[in-house]
Amino acid sequence: VNEQRFLERVRDIVGDAWCRTSAYDRALYRRDASFLNADPLAVVLPGTVGEVRAVVRTCAEAGVPFAPRGAGTGLAGGAVPLPSDRRPISLSLARLDRILSLDPQAAVAEVEPGVVNADLSKAAAAHGLRFAPDPSSQIASTLGGNVATNAGGAHCLAYGVTSAHVLALELVDTGGDLHLLSSLAPETDGYDLRGLTVGSEGTFGLVTRAWLRLLPLPPETRTLLVGFPSVRAACEGVTDIIAAGAMPAACELMDATAIGMVEDYCQPGYPRDAAAVLLLEFEGLPGAVAEGVEAALAAARGRGAQSVSTAEDDQARALLWKGRKSFAGAIAQLVPEYYLHDVVVPRTKLADVMDEILRIVAEHGLTAINVFHAGDGNLHPTLLFDRREPGVFERVTAAGAAIVATAHAAGGVLSGEHGIGIEKRDFMCAVLSEDDLHVQRRLRAAIDPSGLANPGKVLPSPASCGDAPPSLVPEGAWV
Amino acid sequence: VNEQRFLERVRDIVGDAWCRTSAYDRALYRRDASFLNADPLAVVLPGTVGEVRAVVRTCAEAGVPFAPRGAGTGLAGGAVPLPSDRRPISLSLARLDRILSLDPQAAVAEVEPGVVNADLSKAAAAHGLRFAPDPSSQIASTLGGNVATNAGGAHCLAYGVTSAHVLALELVDTGGDLHLLSSLAPETDGYDLRGLTVGSEGTFGLVTRAWLRLLPLPPETRTLLVGFPSVRAACEGVTDIIAAGAMPAACELMDATAIGMVEDYCQPGYPRDAAAVLLLEFEGLPGAVAEGVEAALAAARGRGAQSVSTAEDDQARALLWKGRKSFAGAIAQLVPEYYLHDVVVPRTKLADVMDEILRIVAEHGLTAINVFHAGDGNLHPTLLFDRREPGVFERVTAAGAAIVATAHAAGGVLSGEHGIGIEKRDFMCAVLSEDDLHVQRRLRAAIDPSGLANPGKVLPSPASCGDAPPSLVPEGAWV
Repeated sequence: VNEQRFLERVRDIVGDAWCRTSAYDRALYRRDASFLNADPLAVVLPGTVGEVRAVVRTCAEAGVPFAPRGAGTGLAGGAVPLPSDRRPISLSLARLDRILSLDPQAAVAEVEPGVVNADLSKAAAAHGLRFAPDPSSQIASTLGGNVATNAGGAHCLAYGVTSAHVLALELVDTGGDLHLLSSLAPETDGYDLRGLTVGSEGTFGLVTRAWLRLLPLPPETRTLLVGFPSVRAACEGVTDIIAAGAMPAACELMDATAIGMVEDYCQPGYPRDAAAVLLLEFEGLPGAVAEGVEAALAAARGRGAQSVSTAEDDQARALLWKGRKSFAGAIAQLVPEYYLHDVVVPRTKLADVMDEILRIVAEHGLTAINVFHAGDGNLHPTLLFDRREPGVFERVTAAGAAIVATAHAAGGVLSGEHGIGIEKRDFMCAVLSEDDLHVQRRLRAAIDPSGLANPGKVLPSPASCGDAPPSLVPEGAWV
Repeated sequence: VNEQRFLERVRDIVGDAWCRTSAYDRALYRRDASFLNADPLAVVLPGTVGEVRAVVRTCAEAGVPFAPRGAGTGLAGGAVPLPSDRRPISLSLARLDRILSLDPQAAVAEVEPGVVNADLSKAAAAHGLRFAPDPSSQIASTLGGNVATNAGGAHCLAYGVTSAHVLALELVDTGGDLHLLSSLAPETDGYDLRGLTVGSEGTFGLVTRAWLRLLPLPPETRTLLVGFPSVRAACEGVTDIIAAGAMPAACELMDATAIGMVEDYCQPGYPRDAAAVLLLEFEGLPGAVAEGVEAALAAARGRGAQSVSTAEDDQARALLWKGRKSFAGAIAQLVPEYYLHDVVVPRTKLADVMDEILRIVAEHGLTAINVFHAGDGNLHPTLLFDRREPGVFERVTAAGAAIVATAHAAGGVLSGEHGIGIEKRDFMCAVLSEDDLHVQRRLRAAIDPSGLANPGKVLPSPASCGDAPPSLVPEGAWV
C-alpha cells in the first residue's frame, strides 16, 4: 500500500479535516515540550474510539507506525513522530475529551484520554473530590498523557503517582482490538496489565478510556515556606521531616537561584537570604494538620531552618505556590532556553547527589536552577542556556548525561515522571543489562507484536547499545 | 535425561539431605493450606542463590518443571506441584531465610524469600519501624510467598498491599539467570517488571531477594469495636466512615456467627447481641487519631451503631484483636473443615453483595462465617462443613462458584490476596476474554519462554475454557 492510498483510507475514516499533511500542520506536530522533533507522515485526529480502532487497523494493514499524542507537553520526546523504517503518523487523542461519568459515592471518574488534568479536578470539586496527581503541566496536559508517562506532581508525595489512581483502562491494541484492563476493584485478575500499561508511553497501543480514583478534598490545608542556610540542610530536613512521621502532602525544594529569580519575577515573598527553601503543604483533618506542621518545624529547626512563613488564608497560600509555579515563566525572563532533567534518587541520598550535581554544573561552566519534588527524591536540575553561544548545547547535554549517570550510581532511576521517550532511551543501555533489555523487548512484543506502536521510544535497539557513552539526543531525532 | 539422572544432578548441587523423594517427604509437600494437592517428583530445598540457579538450570536441561514454595500457607494451590506433561519438583525457598540488611535511615530491609513475615517486623521494631503488610498468616508465611501472591492484611487498607512495599526484586529466571528488577528509588526504568512480578505466583521464576520498604511505627494507636444491628448497616458504615475522610489503618467486619464463635472460644468481650461488628484501628499522630475516631463514630452512629468498646491500653487492644485473630482456631472447635473465599468488590457494592452471598449460602443449605477486610471490599465468606456428610463438598464448591460469579458480576475480581493459583484458574475463562487471556499468555511466555515455572497455575489452557461453568477444582488436582 503506498502512502497516498493509506492517507486516502485514513481520510475516509476521520474526514478530510482531521487528517492533515501540509508542511504547516506537520510542523505543529513535530515536537513535544522537549528539544526533540521529527517530521510525521501526517497528523491524524480521530473523533471516536471507533475511528481510533479503524485508523490503527489501517496502519496495521499498511505497515505504517503511529506516535500517540496527548497535549504535547511531554519533556522526553515520547510523542515525537520518530522515523523507524517508515515515517509514523502523529495520532492525536485530543478530540476524545469528554468526562463520561463521575460517580461521587464510588469516587470514580470515567474519562476519555483527551480530558485536561485540571478539568477533571475542577469537575470533581463540585462533589468535594479531586484527582490527586497534579503535574506542573496540569492546566494543559491530558489524562491520557499522564497515564502514558505515569505522571507525578507536587502532591504525589502523599498520594502516589498516577499509577496509584488508575482503576481500569480501555486499550486499543495495534490490531485495533479493544481490551478492558482490570475493573473498579482495587486488585486485578491475572498479571497486572493495568499497572504495566501505565507508564508504557504509547508503546502498547492507545488508551481510549480510563477509570480514575478520586479522593476527598481535604477539610484543612496548611502551607509553609521554610528557609535553610544551605541546600544540604534543606535536603537533610526533608529526610528528617518524613522520618518524624509528619508526611506532608507536598514537599518542594527551591534553591537560591530559583528564589531570587521568582522574587524578581512575581514577588511571592520568598526569603532572598535563604540558600534554599522547602515549600511544605499539610492536608487532612485539622488536628492532624496542626501536628504535622509542628513535627515538621521541629525537624526543620534541627537542621538549622532560619525562617518560616505560614499562609494564614487562601490568598497567602496561593502566593506561596505562585513562586513555585512561576518557575518556567521566570526563567523565560533570563534566558531563551533551558534543559530540565527528571532523575530520581533514594531520599537519603538527596544531599550528596545535589552536591555532585552542583559540581557537575560548575565544571561545565553552566548555570542551573533546582526546583523539585524533594520528598520523592525526584530531582529536576534545570540547565539554563542561550543556544547562540557556540558549544553551549554540547556542554548542556554533556552535563545532563553526567547528572543522569550520577543519579544511577546513587541507586536512582532515569525518570520520575517525564518518561524515557527518546531522550533517555539510550541510557537504558547503561542501567539495564543486555539480558534485562531483552526481557523488556519480549514484554513489549507480547503486547505489540507488530512493533507499530510508538517505535523508537523507551527501549534502545541492540545495535544502539555500543561502547560509546549514551547521548540525550539519539540518532534520528532533531534538536 | 531420565528422572534418576536428573535427581542425581540435583543431589550433587544441594546435597542428599536437601533433595527428598521418599513417599513421606513427598506427602508433606503435596499441599498448601487449600484442599488442592498433587504428588511432586521430589522435594528440593536449595540453601543459596547459587544452588537455586543451578537447580533451575538442571530443570531447564532436563525439561522438568518446578513449583516454587514458601511456607505453604497459600489458600489457592499456588505451591501445589500440579503435573503438566511431567511431574514438577517442589522447589522450597525456606532455607533462604536471612534478613541481609536493615537500613533504619533509608527505612529499607534487604531480605531473602524464606524470612517469615512477622520476623521482619520484629527486627524492624528495634528501629521504630515495621513492614506494613500483615497477612493473617504472618507468623508462618514467608516474604517470598507474600510477594508471589501480592498478599494483603488487616492494615493494608491504609498502607496498601505488598506491591506498594516492594522497592526491588532479584529474580532467577527459568534459564537460571539473575535479574535485578528496579532499584531503591520509587520508580522503575522501562516497563514495570517489578510490579508485574509481584503477584505472579512463581510463574516468572524464583524471587531470591527483595528490598522492602519499612514504615515508622505509629506514635499512637486506637482500636475500637463497633456493634451494628445488621450486616448491611455495618457495610454501609464502612463506606460512610471512609467517605468521611477518617481513613482507618484497619477496618474488619465480623458477622454474628463469627462473634458467637469467638466469644465461645476465647471471650474477647464482643457484643453477642450485635448482628455485625466493625473492628477499627486508627494510627498516627495523636490528634489525627482522635479526630479519626470521632469522625468514624459519627458516621457509624449515622448507620445505627448500637455499641462501642474502645481499647484503653495495649492489653485491651490485644484482647479486641484476639477475637479477630482466633477465627481459624475457633472454627476448628465447631467443624472439621472450612472453605475460605477471597473475592473483592468495589466498596460501594459491599452491602448488596453480602446480601446475595448470604442468600447463596442459605440456598445451598450451608453455614458461612464472614470475617473480612471490609475497608478494602475484600470478602472472605467461609463455608463450614464436615466432609463425612455425603454431597456436602459438592455443595460447598457449587456455592463457592456462585459467590465468585456474584463478585465478578458486581465489578469485582477473583482474588484480593490469596492469588489465582489452581483454585481460581478456570474462572479466568469467565472474567477475561479469550483475546485478553491470549495477551496474558504471551506476557508469561515473554518472561518464561520455557513454560517450566509453576505450570498449570494462574492461566487456564485454551482447551479448559469450554462451555461448562468453571470449577474450583480443575482437572489434575486432588482434593
